Amino acid sequence: MTQAAPLLPETARANTLVARRLGIDTRREAVIFMRKDCHVCRSEGFTAHARVRVANGKNAIIATLYQITSELLLPGEAGLSESAWQTLSVEDGGPITVSHARPLDSMSTVRARIYGNRVAEDDMQPVIDDIVAGRYSDIDIAAFITVCASLPLNDAETVALTRAMVNAGDTLHWPTSPIVDKHCIGGLPGNRTTPIVVAIVAACGLTMPKTSSRAITSPAGTADTMETLAPVALDIVQMRRVVEREGGCIVWGGAVRLSPADDILIRVERALDLDSEGQLVASILSKKVAAGSTHLVLDIPVGPTAKVRSDESAKALASFLSRVGAAFGLETRIVLTDGAQPVGTGIGPALEARDVLSVLQVSRNAPVDLRDRSVRLAGALLELGGAASAGDGEAKAAKVLGDGRAWAKFRDICEAQGGMRTPPEAAHRRPVLAAEAGTVTKIDNRRIAKVAKLAGAPDAKAAGLEMHVRLGDTVEAEQPLYTIHAETPGELAYALEYAATNGDIVGSG
Amino acid sequence: MTQAAPLLPETARANTLVARRLGIDTRREAVIFMRKDCHVCRSEGFTAHARVRVANGKNAIIATLYQITSELLLPGEAGLSESAWQTLSVEDGGPITVSHARPLDSMSTVRARIYGNRVAEDDMQPVIDDIVAGRYSDIDIAAFITVCASLPLNDAETVALTRAMVNAGDTLHWPTSPIVDKHCIGGLPGNRTTPIVVAIVAACGLTMPKTSSRAITSPAGTADTMETLAPVALDIVQMRRVVEREGGCIVWGGAVRLSPADDILIRVERALDLDSEGQLVASILSKKVAAGSTHLVLDIPVGPTAKVRSDESAKALASFLSRVGAAFGLETRIVLTDGAQPVGTGIGPALEARDVLSVLQVSRNAPVDLRDRSVRLAGALLELGGAASAGDGEAKAAKVLGDGRAWAKFRDICEAQGGMRTPPEAAHRRPVLAAEAGTVTKIDNRRIAKVAKLAGAPDAKAAGLEMHVRLGDTVEAEQPLYTIHAETPGELAYALEYAATNGDIVGSG
Repeated sequence: MTQAAPLLPETARANTLVARRLGIDTRREAVIFMRKDCHVCRSEGFTAHARVRVANGKNAIIATLYQITSELLLPGEAGLSESAWQTLSVEDGGPITVSHARPLDSMSTVRARIYGNRVAEDDMQPVIDDIVAGRYSDIDIAAFITVCASLPLNDAETVALTRAMVNAGDTLHWPTSPIVDKHCIGGLPGNRTTPIVVAIVAACGLTMPKTSSRAITSPAGTADTMETLAPVALDIVQMRRVVEREGGCIVWGGAVRLSPADDILIRVERALDLDSEGQLVASILSKKVAAGSTHLVLDIPVGPTAKVRSDESAKALASFLSRVGAAFGLETRIVLTDGAQPVGTGIGPALEARDVLSVLQVSRNAPVDLRDRSVRLAGALLELGGAASAGDGEAKAAKVLGDGRAWAKFRDICEAQGGMRTPPEAAHRRPVLAAEAGTVTKIDNRRIAKVAKLAGAPDAKAAGLEMHVRLGDTVEAEQPLYTIHAETPGELAYALEYAATNGDIVGSG
Repeated sequence: MTQAAPLLPETARANTLVARRLGIDTRREAVIFMRKDCHVCRSEGFTAHARVRVANGKNAIIATLYQITSELLLPGEAGLSESAWQTLSVEDGGPITVSHARPLDSMSTVRARIYGNRVAEDDMQPVIDDIVAGRYSDIDIAAFITVCASLPLNDAETVALTRAMVNAGDTLHWPTSPIVDKHCIGGLPGNRTTPIVVAIVAACGLTMPKTSSRAITSPAGTADTMETLAPVALDIVQMRRVVEREGGCIVWGGAVRLSPADDILIRVERALDLDSEGQLVASILSKKVAAGSTHLVLDIPVGPTAKVRSDESAKALASFLSRVGAAFGLETRIVLTDGAQPVGTGIGPALEARDVLSVLQVSRNAPVDLRDRSVRLAGALLELGGAASAGDGEAKAAKVLGDGRAWAKFRDICEAQGGMRTPPEAAHRRPVLAAEAGTVTKIDNRRIAKVAKLAGAPDAKAAGLEMHVRLGDTVEAEQPLYTIHAETPGELAYALEYAATNGDIVGSG
C-alpha cells in the first residue's frame, strides 16, 4: 500500500571498509573485528557478538562481530580472522562490505524440531549446507545437536541427515566393486587394527581405499599412527594411484572433503559431551557412503569404560547402523569385540605403530590381542567382500598374515604412499608403579587415554604410554604398571601428576 | 593402585603469561588471545576455540581461546577481551596463568535434561550460577535454552529457575508494603504506559519503584524513552531516595543487578528466535521478585502480529504466570489488551516521550489509546494494591490523571531523578505515502518496529516514526501513512529503502 520515497542508495550502501588480516586463528568460526566507533557499526546499530554478512564482491560469509575499542585498527579498517580471510579470498587493504545478516531460512527447520516436529527429507539438506558454509553460529549448531539428542533422530531423519552430509562434500567413485571398509566405534586405546586389516585384505585382492581421521579426543587416530610409518596427507589423485597399484591405502581423510559437516558437528557434540545415536550413525555412514564403500565391517568394542557399555546397546546400535546403511546400498556386518581394556601395549601414534609393525612382522612379542582382533575383522571383510566363503575368512586372514604376504603388502603400500618411515622414540620416560601387590581387575580406558594425551599424544608423535599389565595379571608392589613416554620434561610431569592423583586408573580388586 | 612418581611442579605449572589489554569488546564472552607457538598452547595441547581457565591470583574465569599467528602479541604475552580483563582485574603487563578448564559439574544437569529428566529444585541454582559467572560457553547456554523449549519447563522447574535467577543477583527490600509493579509482555510498538501508570499510582499513595530495561529488540525500551525526560541511570541509593520522597521512580534497571542471568539467556534465545513460556515466566518474575514487588499487573497485548496471538494462549500464559508468582507470594493480575496495532502516535524514544507528555498534560491531541490503556492498568494496580475498591480503580485513575495530579507527580519524580529534560527532535524526516486510496486493514507491528530501528532508534533518541493512521481509517492516494524521523540522512535512507520494499507494512483490505 505504500509508495517508495526516493532512495539514497549511495549513502545506504556505504558499508565499505578496508580489510586487514589480523592473523587470528578461530578455527572454522568466521570473526570480523570492527572499531566500535566505526560508521558501519553506528549506522547499522551493530553490537558485539552480532552476526553480520561480510562480502568481497560476490564472495560472502556470515561472521561474528567483535568490536575494537583500542587502536588495533585504524578508522575505516576491519580485521578478519584467518578462516574469514581465506573464505573471502580478500587482499590486504582490499574493500569489504558489511551488513546485517538475514535470518537463515533453514533455522526454521531447527526451530520446528525443537517444538516437536520431525524433519522432512527435503528440509535436512539446507540445514547441513548452511552449517558447512559457516552460516550457523555455535549457538545455532548447539541447538540442532541438542534437539537431535533430546528427541532422538528416527530412521528416516537419520537417512536424511546421512544423505545431506554426503551431498555437502566430495564423493569418491571407484571403477571396481566391491569397495570394502572397516570402522571402529570409539573409545578403545591402542585398537589400531586398520593398517593390519588393510594389508591383509589388499593382499587377498580386495579393494580397500581407507581414509582415516586424526585423533579428536583420543591419544591417536589411525592417520596419526600411520603417519609415523608413511606419508598420509595424500590428495585424491595420489590416493587413487596408490589404490590402483596396491589395492589399498591408509591415508588421512583431511585432504579429501568427505562429509565436511561431520567435523563441525563433532566439535559441538564434544563440547557438550553429548552422544546421540542418530548423529553417530550419520557421522560414520556419511563418511563411508561418500568414500564409495559398498561393504562395511563395524568393530564395536563393548566394555564398562568403552563408548558402548553393554551387548544390548551394541546390538541396538548395530541394527540401527545396518538399517540406515541399507538405505544407501551399503552392506554392513557388525563385530562385537572386547572393550574391557586397551589393545596391544602402545598408546600414542608411534607406540601404536610399533605394535602394528610387530604384528605384521609376526614378531615373537607381537601383542596377541591386536593380532587376533585384526584377523577377526579382516576375516569378516574377506567373507563380506566375497574373497572367502562363509566361515573361512579368519583362517584365510591368519594365513596371509602368518606367511608374510600382509607385511609385504603393507611395505608396498607405504612405498606407494611416499616411502616407509621409522616411528620416533620418546626421550623422556617414567614408569608408574603398583603401590601394592594384587591382581589387576580394571583398567580405565578413558583415564589411560587422558594420561597419554597429557604426555603429548597425538601432537607429540613419540608420546603416550606403554602398558605392562593386562586384566587378570598379578603384580608385586613397585612393579611397573605402565611407562609414560613424553618428548618434553613438562609433558612428562603433567602426565605423572595426573597419574598420581588418579591412582585407580589401573585398579586391583 | 599406583604410586606417585616424583612431580615436577615448577615445570608443570609454568603456565604463566604476561597479560595485555587488547581493547576488544566481545560483550560478556571472555576471550583470551594466545600465540599459536606459545609454550602454554603447545604444552597444554590447546587448539583455537578451546575453553581454558585463566587466573590472576585467586581470580579465575573460563575463557574461549583464539590463537594468534601474527605479531599482534609478543612471545610470552596473552591478550584479553574487555570482559575478561575487567572480571580478572588484571594490570597491563601483570602475570596470568592459563590451564585446561575442568568440565562443569552443572552441565550434567543440562545433559540429563536433554535425555529427558526433569531438573530437581536443587540442581537449577548451580546451572544459573555458572551461567552468571560466565562459565558456560554459548554452546552450553544454547543447549540449555533449547532443551527448555523442546521439553517445556513445568511449574516446579519454572519456580526453581525463577528462584535461581533471583538468587544469582541483587535483591531489593522496601520498608513499606505493598510494592506494586506492572509489566507488559512484549511486542507492541509505542505501548509506553509505564511513566503514566507510575505517576498515577504514586499520586494515589502507592509505592512503585519501577526499574525498566533498555530496548533489546524493540525501537525503544521504557528506560530509553524515560531517559529523554529525565536521568535514569540511578544507583540503588539514589533510587531509594527518589522512591522515599515521591513514592515512585522510573529508572533503568542496569545499575542494579536484578536477575543478571536474564540478559544472558535472552541474548541466546533471541539469536535462536525461540520463545519458551517457562523461560519467559522466569525472566519476568525473577526481575519482579528480585525488585521486592508484592503486587503485579501484567499487560498482555493480544493481536495477529503481537508476541501473544490469541486470547487462549494469553490466558494460558496468564495462568502460568499467576501460579509461579504465587510460589513467591506475588499477587498478579493480568490485563489482556488490544495488540492489533501500535499504541499512540510515536515509535522511538523521544517520539514516545512526546506521547507520554501529552497524555500526562491532558492535551487535546493526546493519543486516546495510550491514555485509556494507562488508566486501565493504573486502575488495576490501584485495586490490587488496595488504593481503590474493586471496580473503582479506573475511575480513580482517570480522575488523578484528569485533574493534573499525575502530571504534577511525574514532574516531581523527574526532578527527584535529577531534573526534567525536553525530548530531542529529529533533523531528517520523510513521510511514507499511500500508493492508492483505501481502508487501513492491517498494521504489521514487527515491521513497523523494524523501520523505526533502521531509522536509528533506540540509540538515536530522536529517531523512529510517527503514525498518521490507525486501523479502520480511510486514506487517499498520496496521503501520508507515517513519517520516518532520523538523525542522519543515511539512517533515513535505510528506513525508507526497507519501507519501499515492504509496501504492505500498512495494508488495505
